[in-house]
Amino acid sequence: MRAGLVSRDGRITRRIKEPTSGDVLELITHAAEKLFSEECAGIGLAVAGLVNRENSRVLTSPNLKGVEKIDFLLELGKRFRIPVIIENDANAAAFGEMWTGAGKNFSSFVLLTLGTGIGGGIIYDRTLLNVAAEIGHMCIDADGERCPCGNYGCLESYASARAILSKAISSLEHGRDSILKEYCSGNCYKLTAEDVFKAALDGDALARELLKNAGKYLGIGIANLINILSPEAVILTGGLSGAWDIYVSEAVRESSRRAFRDLSEKVKILPSLLMDDAGIAGSAGLVFQENKIQ
Amino acid sequence: MRAGLVSRDGRITRRIKEPTSGDVLELITHAAEKLFSEECAGIGLAVAGLVNRENSRVLTSPNLKGVEKIDFLLELGKRFRIPVIIENDANAAAFGEMWTGAGKNFSSFVLLTLGTGIGGGIIYDRTLLNVAAEIGHMCIDADGERCPCGNYGCLESYASARAILSKAISSLEHGRDSILKEYCSGNCYKLTAEDVFKAALDGDALARELLKNAGKYLGIGIANLINILSPEAVILTGGLSGAWDIYVSEAVRESSRRAFRDLSEKVKILPSLLMDDAGIAGSAGLVFQENKIQ
Repeated sequence: MRAGLVSRDGRITRRIKEPTSGDVLELITHAAEKLFSEECAGIGLAVAGLVNRENSRVLTSPNLKGVEKIDFLLELGKRFRIPVIIENDANAAAFGEMWTGAGKNFSSFVLLTLGTGIGGGIIYDRTLLNVAAEIGHMCIDADGERCPCGNYGCLESYASARAILSKAISSLEHGRDSILKEYCSGNCYKLTAEDVFKAALDGDALARELLKNAGKYLGIGIANLINILSPEAVILTGGLSGAWDIYVSEAVRESSRRAFRDLSEKVKILPSLLMDDAGIAGSAGLVFQENKIQ
Repeated sequence: MRAGLVSRDGRITRRIKEPTSGDVLELITHAAEKLFSEECAGIGLAVAGLVNRENSRVLTSPNLKGVEKIDFLLELGKRFRIPVIIENDANAAAFGEMWTGAGKNFSSFVLLTLGTGIGGGIIYDRTLLNVAAEIGHMCIDADGERCPCGNYGCLESYASARAILSKAISSLEHGRDSILKEYCSGNCYKLTAEDVFKAALDGDALARELLKNAGKYLGIGIANLINILSPEAVILTGGLSGAWDIYVSEAVRESSRRAFRDLSEKVKILPSLLMDDAGIAGSAGLVFQENKIQ
């Protein structure tokens, strides 16, 4: 879990990083206590999962069970007596990038968080759309593999770090030769997505193929977003966006092959500026916005 | 081509229907002349294809070549001396449904036009999003068949009337038994999507299978829209929406299997109220809105 103190002009003046384990509410309360002062305008939470902004509840958070039951508004409001808002992490990151990051000069853009899973946030006319933006759970392969979300052929199952890693493992298990074998000393379950990226940079054929293939699918997802939302930009963040030269390049190529030319010619595909800070900046920005402080 | 005279409260008081042939500008000018009076506040055009609202030009209209070159604003403005706006047909229909149709009581919805192709329009917070909304060209099958738009596996290639018809023809050519053979007296190229619908109502196994299968793919597209845009409603219009019991029912079933349950439980999937009139009402409504007459 990451937390920060954010000034009214969007600078992060203090940061806290804690392992996300144990009681979530306790963890958050503890971090907030460390950062809190009488000057604080409010608390903004960015949580992975579906968030209902109206009643400030987390509807589902596949990787953070238990969080659905917590009434953060009540619990944190009672303790700190300042406004509390809650938003999906990728939505908050999109707001952050719009406020002080790579989206500063765009009227409309889509942000994609490319990590273990794939999340999204949509900015239209300088407003964060209050929509699910579960872009990782857009089906791009009708008869594709089942996703834990219940859908089939989700973008996330082809283009995320988890997807890349699972394909790396199955390739190694099928006897495919690769430097990755050395990286993990034979135990391929110890591999990480970073290993695959590093191997690709070292010129490993399997790793390059896996990243390119995942990039192709990301490009299909981006093309869909371009054809539907015709944004001015697509901003990419999360660990995988570091693999720009292989993975993202392939995505850019694939999306420009597939999207309407008039639209794809105009769209800029850019890296995030704030990276891991986007969610912190964005959730604070939302507090300022909702309380008309900005 | 359809044209109409629309009152400030959204009633269509006169209608014109002409075959879309010959010179498009002449056709439109002629219709406008018939409907024009000194009371007219403006002219709204709804055109199939990608429209650039900023400069009021049609970027691409696959089925109406030549229309890209016409400067409607200049040509019609010169002739009638009233404001002219131009919008994509499905976007205009979405605005129409919001104004006086099935979307009247929703804050956010997606409209889908289900005909030869599949178009879309997105309403968010009672505003028509100025986006492409080319929902028919969302890829739902990464390695699927090539679409004339250049993409592969477009929703439209699986769920539109054209897709149903082309699959009906190929099934008959492969010797599949069906009442459709009688309908077309052996010449399957004479078949229409209405024939397939009629045959399905008559209990024809092939026709039912084709409609159900297309409905399944429509459901995949709807699930994607739900996961991304979490609308309150999805409103269906166009010829195919008449096939509610087989085609749309299957789509509803498939989308509720695939979309996030918390979202799909809340979304209403409804038929259009205005049907063919939605585009006329909507483009007039946009004229009123842009000129602050409403």
